[in-house]
Amino acid sequence: MTQDLVSALFGDPFAVVNTTGLVAFALVGSAKAIREEFDLFGVVVVGLATAFVGGVTRDLLVNRVPLALQSPVEIGLGLLGVGLAVVLSLRLRAPDEHTLIVVSDAVGLGAFATTGAIVASDVGTSAFGVVAIATVNAVGGGAFADILLDRSPFILFDDFYASCAVLGGCSYWLVAGAGVIDGGAALACATVTVAVRLVAVTRDWQVPTVGDLRNTDE
Amino acid sequence: MTQDLVSALFGDPFAVVNTTGLVAFALVGSAKAIREEFDLFGVVVVGLATAFVGGVTRDLLVNRVPLALQSPVEIGLGLLGVGLAVVLSLRLRAPDEHTLIVVSDAVGLGAFATTGAIVASDVGTSAFGVVAIATVNAVGGGAFADILLDRSPFILFDDFYASCAVLGGCSYWLVAGAGVIDGGAALACATVTVAVRLVAVTRDWQVPTVGDLRNTDE
Amino acid sequence: MTQDLVSALFGDPFAVVNTTGLVAFALVGSAKAIREEFDLFGVVVVGLATAFVGGVTRDLLVNRVPLALQSPVEIGLGLLGVGLAVVLSLRLRAPDEHTLIVVSDAVGLGAFATTGAIVASDVGTSAFGVVAIATVNAVGGGAFADILLDRSPFILFDDFYASCAVLGGCSYWLVAGAGVIDGGAALACATVTVAVRLVAVTRDWQVPTVGDLRNTDE
Repeated sequence: MTQDLVSALFGDPFAVVNTTGLVAFALVGSAKAIREEFDLFGVVVVGLATAFVGGVTRDLLVNRVPLALQSPVEIGLGLLGVGLAVVLSLRLRAPDEHTLIVVSDAVGLGAFATTGAIVASDVGTSAFGVVAIATVNAVGGGAFADILLDRSPFILFDDFYASCAVLGGCSYWLVAGAGVIDGGAALACATVTVAVRLVAVTRDWQVPTVGDLRNTDE
Repeated sequence: MTQDLVSALFGDPFAVVNTTGLVAFALVGSAKAIREEFDLFGVVVVGLATAFVGGVTRDLLVNRVPLALQSPVEIGLGLLGVGLAVVLSLRLRAPDEHTLIVVSDAVGLGAFATTGAIVASDVGTSAFGVVAIATVNAVGGGAFADILLDRSPFILFDDFYASCAVLGGCSYWLVAGAGVIDGGAALACATVTVAVRLVAVTRDWQVPTVGDLRNTDE
Repeated sequence: MTQDLVSALFGDPFAVVNTTGLVAFALVGSAKAIREEFDLFGVVVVGLATAFVGGVTRDLLVNRVPLALQSPVEIGLGLLGVGLAVVLSLRLRAPDEHTLIVVSDAVGLGAFATTGAIVASDVGTSAFGVVAIATVNAVGGGAFADILLDRSPFILFDDFYASCAVLGGCSYWLVAGAGVIDGGAALACATVTVAVRLVAVTRDWQVPTVGDLRNTDE
């Protein structure tokens, strides 16, 4: 039983990044809800929503009963992330800005973009569908959490975040098209998403606005 | 025909609570939209959304065409609730705070949590799935209405409301597991949800925030 | 290939209105995001959401994998609308208020309401289902875009907009019930929606609020 659990959580490289991502996403979401002074029920909901809404949306789009409702292990990981956020928030002001969490969040972004791309190409969507579902899987949870917190999804006007998943989804599609090796597309998607995200955080990249373009024009 | 309708609305105890709940939920939602000075179209949409979005989300999660789109009777009950809200709002300032409506709303919460739990266990989700779908079915409409009204869902930071449905969902799962009698799980879920809600309203229970925990710590 | 594309876009009257609608909806949505100073990623997301979320919601409600994820041509039209909004916003303050765009938007409203009504009656929903899905298909994208922009959907308190789709959906159902000629219901739905919308814009129609009714009462 314990052995099964260990193998489900860390049995292969993909399980490791997925496990890391679920905990990190739940932690980041709950920490935001704690700062908004939501009650504990709200903190749990926002944390689990951040971790799972991306995958649930993906499953709805491809017409499957969401996996998150069927797997107790994944929910346990989400609750672990929520618990960590609560404990850390009693000591730190913003546990979600700690370097370890920022890196884990980038790993989660890569894991979720990859799962999305794999599921989308399994059901035979267009290239746009692969990129769109990879992106929704990766950032849907965070965007939905922001709507629950009554603000615009941060991914739409701030930071270089969702764009990493878009680039990861495009890599998946290009490598899958080239058809080199089994698993090559998934590896490319995860690597590109995580690498671009880490560079974007380090160098503080921003996506330009139309206002920026207008100023360049002058 | 009239007889069929009467039996659909009040034929068994469950039909009675479901009927009460639909009217009460639609009334509560419309009253909120009226206070925000939405136009009549908006009032109808927010009222119907409060009554039906929980059930529609449940149906989407288990991959069914939503029942609400197939049953004219249920829509009629929703519109009745909206009509009552409009008529009462011409006379009262907050018809949704009347004791009769608060009690009906608690009855609706119990009815919808129970429907959610039944549907979830029919499709074979995990224990978490049963509790999650019961809760979404019960509070999804109210939460979505708050998003339409451009505020955070009240269930996330205020009041002891969604927690009643969580406890109801847990009861369902425990009693179903014990497997005593047919219908026992449904009865337990509805009773626990309604009873806890009524106690919570009377005693003004609140779920604590992490800030409360921090203060206790000191 | 070019010939196929031309025929997909303009091959029959319905394709022409659908093409016009997709471009207009994407343009209107992106222009709103540009005014809120979203970054370019956010502008693309809000534009595509405005054009496609109505149809995706329709497909989810009737349990289909969304067409938008399978058709590269439709996405191309959405991106064309986004591109137009960006280019026009460098010159004009509010390209979405230009008469040409307002008329195209009305045409899109009619096209999307009609598609929704056709799909709903194909899967055999109730009369309410036909009207509800026609309306969601027509206005769901704009409403979702407003939620992304952190405001209440404008259709709920302002303007005579969604009501046009409701009237169109009712016409569809009435004409389909009468069963006169093939395609008559679709034609009625599209014509009624577009005509009512153009009259509503010209005469500045508003749906009354309960406050208005209360004042009339006195």
